Amino acid sequence: MKPSPDTRDDYFWFTQMTTKFQDNDIYGHLNNSVHSQCIDNAVNLYLTVEGGLNMKNDEVIGLIVNSGCDYFTELDWPSHQTLDVGVRVNKIGRSSVQYAAALFTQDSDNAAAQGHFTHVWINRESRAAAAIPDRLRKSMEAVLKPEA
Amino acid sequence: MKPSPDTRDDYFWFTQMTTKFQDNDIYGHLNNSVHSQCIDNAVNLYLTVEGGLNMKNDEVIGLIVNSGCDYFTELDWPSHQTLDVGVRVNKIGRSSVQYAAALFTQDSDNAAAQGHFTHVWINRESRAAAAIPDRLRKSMEAVLKPEA
Amino acid sequence: MKPSPDTRDDYFWFTQMTTKFQDNDIYGHLNNSVHSQCIDNAVNLYLTVEGGLNMKNDEVIGLIVNSGCDYFTELDWPSHQTLDVGVRVNKIGRSSVQYAAALFTQDSDNAAAQGHFTHVWINRESRAAAAIPDRLRKSMEAVLKPEA
Amino acid sequence: MKPSPDTRDDYFWFTQMTTKFQDNDIYGHLNNSVHSQCIDNAVNLYLTVEGGLNMKNDEVIGLIVNSGCDYFTELDWPSHQTLDVGVRVNKIGRSSVQYAAALFTQDSDNAAAQGHFTHVWINRESRAAAAIPDRLRKSMEAVLKPEA
Repeated sequence: MKPSPDTRDDYFWFTQMTTKFQDNDIYGHLNNSVHSQCIDNAVNLYLTVEGGLNMKNDEVIGLIVNSGCDYFTELDWPSHQTLDVGVRVNKIGRSSVQYAAALFTQDSDNAAAQGHFTHVWINRESRAAAAIPDRLRKSMEAVLKPEA
Repeated sequence: MKPSPDTRDDYFWFTQMTTKFQDNDIYGHLNNSVHSQCIDNAVNLYLTVEGGLNMKNDEVIGLIVNSGCDYFTELDWPSHQTLDVGVRVNKIGRSSVQYAAALFTQDSDNAAAQGHFTHVWINRESRAAAAIPDRLRKSMEAVLKPEA
Repeated sequence: MKPSPDTRDDYFWFTQMTTKFQDNDIYGHLNNSVHSQCIDNAVNLYLTVEGGLNMKNDEVIGLIVNSGCDYFTELDWPSHQTLDVGVRVNKIGRSSVQYAAALFTQDSDNAAAQGHFTHVWINRESRAAAAIPDRLRKSMEAVLKPEA
Repeated sequence: MKPSPDTRDDYFWFTQMTTKFQDNDIYGHLNNSVHSQCIDNAVNLYLTVEGGLNMKNDEVIGLIVNSGCDYFTELDWPSHQTLDVGVRVNKIGRSSVQYAAALFTQDSDNAAAQGHFTHVWINRESRAAAAIPDRLRKSMEAVLKPEA
């Protein structure tokens, strides 16, 4: 089934990111790896700012085990120099969590692209799965998608 | 259901890509946007070399409408300076095609990561869906996954 | 002779750019190729916004023939999520121009890094050197460094 | 004075790097930040492979204080899928070292671009200048440019 774009209401925390002309590929639009970077960065920024995540020193790290993205509207520099990126959590387990994030242009409530990815939290040294620490978990719950 | 890694036998064309230390993120492993780039690049390289795709001048361009990736093994520079990237096509329609591509380390037949994405081919000017040109289609069929 | 950092007064147009956690390299600070991208992007953004440059379709394109950068202060995500980037022109010839651009953190008037590069303007098709078009030249003159 | 391209003879260690279509910018050639990445990566790869550098754990890290590059020949994907990158050292001090690196296409002995940068080695914790460790220094001396 073809997905339809989320709206701003579907996300519970927002940040802004700027684009560069180098983000355009040969086709003159943002290469899809830029979407990946924005989505990944938005979630990690949220976890850092609101959840106290310290990517350099924490005992646990979030390892991406899968990711996906739907693309609805072409984005390009310089038309879209600033993007709003929304973040939410779809579901939380003991050591894994699925996030969603979406890219919005300044003039639309419909997502230009929306992605999701799953982190399995592991111990930085042993690489074994680890329970999500409390403070991080609280920040995830704060943007958890309500059950339908 | 948890996916399992493909093997080299599941892909029908291969290329090699090198990694740089800047591809590592704070966690010391390849950031997942590097996987996106490798997968996207492998498919476009195949289409260029084998299908005569000219990304600068062709009347049609391939627009990504969705993508996804499963990650099985952490990759990092300098442990994995050279990756083998395999390419195949999962299915072809009139104007859309789903590809799969996988990253292999030098010492393994199991994919470290495997992704897929769907191109809708559109006219570069009108942006309307366009039939996949014959030569491109032939190259896609040459790496088409056989029906189970 | 060791260079000293410019201040905000030395630049005549500013834009803001955001950083991503993927801009950090293994050392946990922004990789120097990010500085290159910011400097190159700031100048091209200025030329686009103020000089009417159309990178996709103009008859002329600016080809970089040399570049350089001095780095004074380490930058990192998330400490420096937003950078101010200042632009000026050092000198203009018939078909070549040298720009300077500098990265500033939010809390300092001293450049964290300052770079320069020279564009030779060429015809997109013939690749021969071309006079800088009037409107572009005017935008360059508007941020030209006064003679000492 | 306009610089002239070095030749392969001017460099004493070589590695190969592959390009991706995403390395091209709107102009259809490799963006100059890709040159930066290749140059920086080639030197760090040399130091890692031949000098025992461990970027994650060593007590010292190399901090770039300045860099520069001259560009002679446009490079692009897919014309230049594989680049040879040569490395040498221009001069070594107690805690600082200037490297040069150059990009060569497969069919030429003349550099398409040549860059240089200076590392000041510092203690990872204190950030104070530190003497270059013996093994690293030996690897630098092994590719030191002979005096004219």
